[in-house]
Amino acid sequence: MNDPRQAPWDGLIVGVSLATLDGHGGYGEIGDAALGWRDGTIVHAGPRSALPADPNALSGAVVDAGGGWITPGLVDCHTHLVFAGDRAAEFEQRLQGADYEEIARNGGGILSSVRAVREADEEALLAQSLPRARALVADGVTTLEIKSGYGLDFDGERKMLRVARRIGDELGIGVFTTYLAAHALPPEYAGRADAYIDAVIEWLPRLHAEGLVDAVDAFAERIGFDIAQTRRVFEAARTLGLPVKLHADQLSDGAGAALVAEFGGLSADHVEYTSDAGVRAMAEAGTVAVLLPGAFHVLRETRLPPLDAFRAHRVPMAVATDCNPGTSPLLSLRQAMQLACTHFRLTPEEALRGTTVNAARALGRDDRGVLRPGTRADFVHWAIARPAELCYWLGGRLASAVYAGGNRVA
Amino acid sequence: MNDPRQAPWDGLIVGVSLATLDGHGGYGEIGDAALGWRDGTIVHAGPRSALPADPNALSGAVVDAGGGWITPGLVDCHTHLVFAGDRAAEFEQRLQGADYEEIARNGGGILSSVRAVREADEEALLAQSLPRARALVADGVTTLEIKSGYGLDFDGERKMLRVARRIGDELGIGVFTTYLAAHALPPEYAGRADAYIDAVIEWLPRLHAEGLVDAVDAFAERIGFDIAQTRRVFEAARTLGLPVKLHADQLSDGAGAALVAEFGGLSADHVEYTSDAGVRAMAEAGTVAVLLPGAFHVLRETRLPPLDAFRAHRVPMAVATDCNPGTSPLLSLRQAMQLACTHFRLTPEEALRGTTVNAARALGRDDRGVLRPGTRADFVHWAIARPAELCYWLGGRLASAVYAGGNRVA
Ligand SMILES: [Zn+2]
Ligand SMILES: [Zn+2]
Repeated sequence: MNDPRQAPWDGLIVGVSLATLDGHGGYGEIGDAALGWRDGTIVHAGPRSALPADPNALSGAVVDAGGGWITPGLVDCHTHLVFAGDRAAEFEQRLQGADYEEIARNGGGILSSVRAVREADEEALLAQSLPRARALVADGVTTLEIKSGYGLDFDGERKMLRVARRIGDELGIGVFTTYLAAHALPPEYAGRADAYIDAVIEWLPRLHAEGLVDAVDAFAERIGFDIAQTRRVFEAARTLGLPVKLHADQLSDGAGAALVAEFGGLSADHVEYTSDAGVRAMAEAGTVAVLLPGAFHVLRETRLPPLDAFRAHRVPMAVATDCNPGTSPLLSLRQAMQLACTHFRLTPEEALRGTTVNAARALGRDDRGVLRPGTRADFVHWAIARPAELCYWLGGRLASAVYAGGNRVA
Repeated sequence: MNDPRQAPWDGLIVGVSLATLDGHGGYGEIGDAALGWRDGTIVHAGPRSALPADPNALSGAVVDAGGGWITPGLVDCHTHLVFAGDRAAEFEQRLQGADYEEIARNGGGILSSVRAVREADEEALLAQSLPRARALVADGVTTLEIKSGYGLDFDGERKMLRVARRIGDELGIGVFTTYLAAHALPPEYAGRADAYIDAVIEWLPRLHAEGLVDAVDAFAERIGFDIAQTRRVFEAARTLGLPVKLHADQLSDGAGAALVAEFGGLSADHVEYTSDAGVRAMAEAGTVAVLLPGAFHVLRETRLPPLDAFRAHRVPMAVATDCNPGTSPLLSLRQAMQLACTHFRLTPEEALRGTTVNAARALGRDDRGVLRPGTRADFVHWAIARPAELCYWLGGRLASAVYAGGNRVA
């Protein structure tokens, strides 16, 4: 009847409300709305009445959603999702009363993940990691940051980053790769942290030359690397024009946030102990605070990030799963939002900004995270009556359709 | 080739491990196992080598699961899953700083659920409640307790209980109905709690005569009904031969646990403030302690139930979602297990007993909750490497197949 090629869109959804997250404050709510896209890009995100053409005349390309809400595709801006094995046995041992030392003696802790990743070949690592990525996508994620950091040698880090890229291809979603060789000291470098940092810096340009690195991260903490070592890694990143981010101030105020701000970094992540000076430095540099309530929950932490200072200084806050086998086995970004509201008392609006527009900013990607003509057609249709439900329910399946670049991915 | 009618089972799954939960202590683990059922009942749950017939000779009825674990179908023994509307708006208002009084003034709180349930017709109430039940089943639940308690008049309570029964029929799972008219005082009885209890007692035999009531519950709390009123409700239940259970000691030690034990009740639920005397009374009566970590989580409570006393006195502990719109919007019993491990430090084995054998006991149903020949063929195949994973992951989809009475229900 109609020729869809005549439509100004490849697809158009009507009969929904939009939470565009465009503009400051509020959800950017538009009732009785329409969302249209073409060639992977949003061409209309506004009231149905403002459509440039009569949708009834172009019914082939039009879907009436019959209610619900569309939000931008969720952006999970901090994950360690590529790993082998899991640490459920260790989780069980802890609940049976074993302490960390005992678990380390039994071969547990991060080095057990390092061992498992080194032993797995690339196919096995992909096969184990894909279901986790699929779970995140099924719950609304269309852009996924994935860090290396369980290889801790050239081949292992390369294998992880290759798997991360393949996950993006396989699922048709955006994957942002972060080089985190400075995650922990591998056993073969025990007592020689500076020498390990030399190696980390030597591997970086080789992996970058293979197109495997979008950003560089480090674990700056008493139990990780010190500020001088982190600075050397950041300088190597700067030489290559790569942006930096940092695991900062999770366990103590180690001036990590200030360092990443000094380098104009994308984000400081965890930030439970960040000082007021650190917050001010982040505000000036435009560095995003990435909150990770999953680890806070699992570790039963009590020290809250300086939320009021972030608000006062207008530091954008993002929320991520931190999906990892040791401290945050989260397979849903929506559950991270629930935990952010429960533990950190974020409002649902802050939590949703934190997984859309602010999370995109934490990856330096201003082409997504909002519903606005010209941005990527990454969006989720949710079977909900109001956006706050995304933070309210624990469990369940709320996403009825997930699109990335205009293609249905879940 | 083979005639399935010759097989001693309607279905047989091999290539799995079983967590039978049969016997005291441990998961009842059986490796290289087989699970067979016939006419809705388990006929084999043991090593594959102990099968009464060669499965290769009966391939029509045999499935090789290729790994993973089978547990008993999960039993969610405490839910308020039938309701209309939701309270996400109220959840959002609280995070925006509104206090409970303000929310009540805006028409929020439990009475908003009462209003919504009274206004909804039976079909609308079913349509709103079914997706929640489906979410629970998709995550492994095969027996579901559902309480009334948002009608607070004869027609409203009846409507809720009818919807509960219809959910069981619709989904092919076991539904256990609990009459909880003594949940809150409806506005039309303000200041006349004893008169309302008279009405509650008058409605009970009428609803029971319709086959709508499997047990009787009450909310015994400073903000609910007192012990004398609860006792009257329990006496009415006893007259009809109906078992009792109780919302007890959530906010203070109100001697609720002792009262339900006095009546030989199935369970005392919440029990954060239960005294040592209450625990001993429960132990003697065989009353189960039902732990509800969802409300504990959402309300950010800090008072733990007397777990060590329950362990010392061998009071069986169950874990449930308490699925309700105000304090525990949980759509996954597995997430309740995660919260029980995180907040209450239950071991994964305790949490799994708490949603299988002990939860069945909390409903007085000894025909389920374990994998044992002669019990109902209610079971779940999970894509996991060890049972502790059921408590470890937040989010995701781990159940690959859910069977109730030998039929696949998810
Ligand atoms: Zn991390
Ligand atoms: Zn309850």
